[in-house]
Amino acid sequence: MISIAIMGFGTIGSGVFDVVNINREILKKHVGDEVQVKYVLDIREFPGQPVEKVLVNDVNRILEDPEITVVVETMGGVEPAYTFVKKALEAGKSVATSNKELVAAKGHELMAAAREKGVSFLFEASVGGGIPILRPLRTCLTADRIEEITGILNGTTNYILTKMGQEGTPFETALSEAQAMGFAERRPEADVEGHDACRKLAILLSMVLKERVDPADIYTEGITKITAVDFVCARALGMEIKLLADAEIHEDAVFAMVSPFLVKPDNPLYAVRDVFNGILVHGNMVDDLLFYGRGAGKEATASAVVGDVVEMLQHPAGTVYDGWGEEKRVLSDITRDRHSFLIRVPDQEAEAVPRAFPGAEAVKAALEGEAAFVTEVLSEQEFSERAEKLSILGRIRVHA
Amino acid sequence: MISIAIMGFGTIGSGVFDVVNINREILKKHVGDEVQVKYVLDIREFPGQPVEKVLVNDVNRILEDPEITVVVETMGGVEPAYTFVKKALEAGKSVATSNKELVAAKGHELMAAAREKGVSFLFEASVGGGIPILRPLRTCLTADRIEEITGILNGTTNYILTKMGQEGTPFETALSEAQAMGFAERRPEADVEGHDACRKLAILLSMVLKERVDPADIYTEGITKITAVDFVCARALGMEIKLLADAEIHEDAVFAMVSPFLVKPDNPLYAVRDVFNGILVHGNMVDDLLFYGRGAGKEATASAVVGDVVEMLQHPAGTVYDGWGEEKRVLSDITRDRHSFLIRVPDQEAEAVPRAFPGAEAVKAALEGEAAFVTEVLSEQEFSERAEKLSILGRIRVHA
Repeated sequence: MISIAIMGFGTIGSGVFDVVNINREILKKHVGDEVQVKYVLDIREFPGQPVEKVLVNDVNRILEDPEITVVVETMGGVEPAYTFVKKALEAGKSVATSNKELVAAKGHELMAAAREKGVSFLFEASVGGGIPILRPLRTCLTADRIEEITGILNGTTNYILTKMGQEGTPFETALSEAQAMGFAERRPEADVEGHDACRKLAILLSMVLKERVDPADIYTEGITKITAVDFVCARALGMEIKLLADAEIHEDAVFAMVSPFLVKPDNPLYAVRDVFNGILVHGNMVDDLLFYGRGAGKEATASAVVGDVVEMLQHPAGTVYDGWGEEKRVLSDITRDRHSFLIRVPDQEAEAVPRAFPGAEAVKAALEGEAAFVTEVLSEQEFSERAEKLSILGRIRVHA
Repeated sequence: MISIAIMGFGTIGSGVFDVVNINREILKKHVGDEVQVKYVLDIREFPGQPVEKVLVNDVNRILEDPEITVVVETMGGVEPAYTFVKKALEAGKSVATSNKELVAAKGHELMAAAREKGVSFLFEASVGGGIPILRPLRTCLTADRIEEITGILNGTTNYILTKMGQEGTPFETALSEAQAMGFAERRPEADVEGHDACRKLAILLSMVLKERVDPADIYTEGITKITAVDFVCARALGMEIKLLADAEIHEDAVFAMVSPFLVKPDNPLYAVRDVFNGILVHGNMVDDLLFYGRGAGKEATASAVVGDVVEMLQHPAGTVYDGWGEEKRVLSDITRDRHSFLIRVPDQEAEAVPRAFPGAEAVKAALEGEAAFVTEVLSEQEFSERAEKLSILGRIRVHA
């Protein structure tokens, strides 16, 4: 019998508890021994629930128990998760977490602590929920130069954009629906302003570069400025509007941004709708790969956490993954990054657009008092300079 | 400097040679040392090509060189690949192969030989070409009960069906096009009769069950009977026709078949077109996952082979994966498997259909001298019995 501990009995933590119990036989087959949850750490009480029997409110109960070699962290947020995880690693216990905020902010320190003690720190569930993406990146795509990663990494915003696009639902209504259905937070800023996707992109990019990427260095734009008119234009262009987390890795530059993009129908991400996530990886040999599935949710995310637990239990003797270093990778200034843009201007400025943006093509859509154009491909800096000559009502990047 | 050998310099073998050379720096980063191809085994000569310098025509040159710890097999076919791979494993060398025919027919014996010698036998490229699917199944989805695997596993047939559906191209013409473009074999039976997809399904299923599944036990039907009329019906139903390799794993039954299916638009495989492959995995916790990419082709497939090489070089001390056993898993008789069916009958029998198949719904399509219906869900046996009462012109299963 192998005993593990779960820190935090929220949505994901209770999902981990369930997965371990429901799939007991499966885990036994993979690990070679029965796995049980010996402790669940939470300050709340859950009277009458099965978890009650293993509930503890002092983290030291877990840290001081030599039977516990693997700890799951599903508290969310940086503190006290960081302190608890660090203590667990320093106590020689391996840790699996679903906490993207923690990994993006403190991953490098925790990896160093894990290396120091020869234990593992894994976080498959922190990006793409139940979708296997981090382990395939580090164990499968090792023969490729990864040139681009483009992800729909936030289910809440993808749901909102899907509703806005398909049913003409206004942003606020779609957000309220998502909240009512339980998958958007009451404080939705991290989702709708793109911070959640940004953290996940920082983790993906750190893993590929093997160098620490700071989320604060990634240009991030949310979906709050997207309007019904943008969807009219998108429809006229035969494209979808998606919040993309996009990293281009060139020999001499690494561009990364989170931003709404117009996505063309031949892009596999075009069809990723509702709360689903999709991650498109482009390697110089393998070409395009899509990883698609549930990027959030109790069972799916817990499945990925427990998958990490299984790997750590299968390799008790050492670090499974050595992570990235503490030194920060400086990203390239996005002013040099290049896209075409959908722009909207007041009707009276329509004639000025081709002068400011030579080669811009008018969007054939019936807009009230506005005109829309798609520019040629130009750098962010060129775009900003030329856009100053116009009264831009809205602009969305077009993904190549 | 680490030296490897490649057996067979065809499309995939030359791709492996290229990947090792082009991505030298990437491999060095992952392996910790430079990787070079010391030998390429082929009976042909390649005068003036870079491979010429390392070409050998005697397998013993490879087997007897203690510097070679990892061998790549890309010859295709069961013999002499089987003999050479077995000898390499017995000589204590790890082997990576892209050869699905070999793995489906002899994998269990080769895994036993690898276990015996404490070396690795990996074959990621044998299913889904460049798509990471086998390693994610065995290392990521370990917390899930895998309940269904549905794949578009053969690029040639998917290309043919795409052309037939989108452009009304007749089967023979689409096949000739695929042959002219170099991705259909001159002897296309293995593709169009479904045998290639069947072998890949056997590998996937063996891996999930950890028991040997014999391809000969999988009911297999190709695409040669699909006609333009079927596509008219599919279009009227808003569905696509795909050659699916489908395995359903129930507690008390395992059904597996390769067959053309009608696929609904909400199925992620609906949008997998041309030569692309897609593998949909359903776990009891993670729900649906899609793995999508190039299922064939020189560089993509070679990328997966070299990914296996990297893993084997990272773990020189032991078997990376222990595979499945020698005992054969008996599959359930598909007569108990359940689907609905699209059926076509001569006009004069249209009235008899609802009597033979209560609840069957007429397909609203303009067909010449024919009528089409979609039956309710019923077992294969019930279907066969009832179909005998009619002159069925064609029938295609509908994927749930």
